[in-house]
Amino acid sequence: MQLLVIYDVENDRTRVKVSEALKDYGLSRIQYSAFQGNLSPNRMQELYYRLKTTLGVEVGNIQMFPICDKDAKQIKEIENVSCG
Amino acid sequence: MQLLVIYDVENDRTRVKVSEALKDYGLSRIQYSAFQGNLSPNRMQELYYRLKTTLGVEVGNIQMFPICDKDAKQIKEIENVSCG
Repeated sequence: MQLLVIYDVENDRTRVKVSEALKDYGLSRIQYSAFQGNLSPNRMQELYYRLKTTLGVEVGNIQMFPICDKDAKQIKEIENVSCG
Repeated sequence: MQLLVIYDVENDRTRVKVSEALKDYGLSRIQYSAFQGNLSPNRMQELYYRLKTTLGVEVGNIQMFPICDKDAKQIKEIENVSCG
């Protein structure tokens, strides 16, 4: 199943650790504070506890959105990349 | 149906316009660059074109994730708010 994780984390070091945890679970960065990828339900549960531990008591908000195949087909993207 | 919209927009003025467009369509801010809310398929389509026009040629990435009821029930959130 697809999973989208988005996060707002105040502390720079903690924010980097969150992104490293997401990479460890095979998710890819799609925006500055957003990662997406395929994960089994067990791995999602594991990741949830890893992120909870990683955030610890730091100020922040992390949200995990499972995305079923039907919803995944309806994702819309608008993008302009810089020419530089 | 629920909709999640996340965005990375370089230009400050354009970023504010994107957030205003999302508020106009009744979505609520859940993170710095993430809004969520209930929208009909038609309104989602309208919002897509509004966001496309709003971003124009500015550098940025906007993604719209429809969220079915089943997925909505499995959303997980980890949050620590500042005590200040």
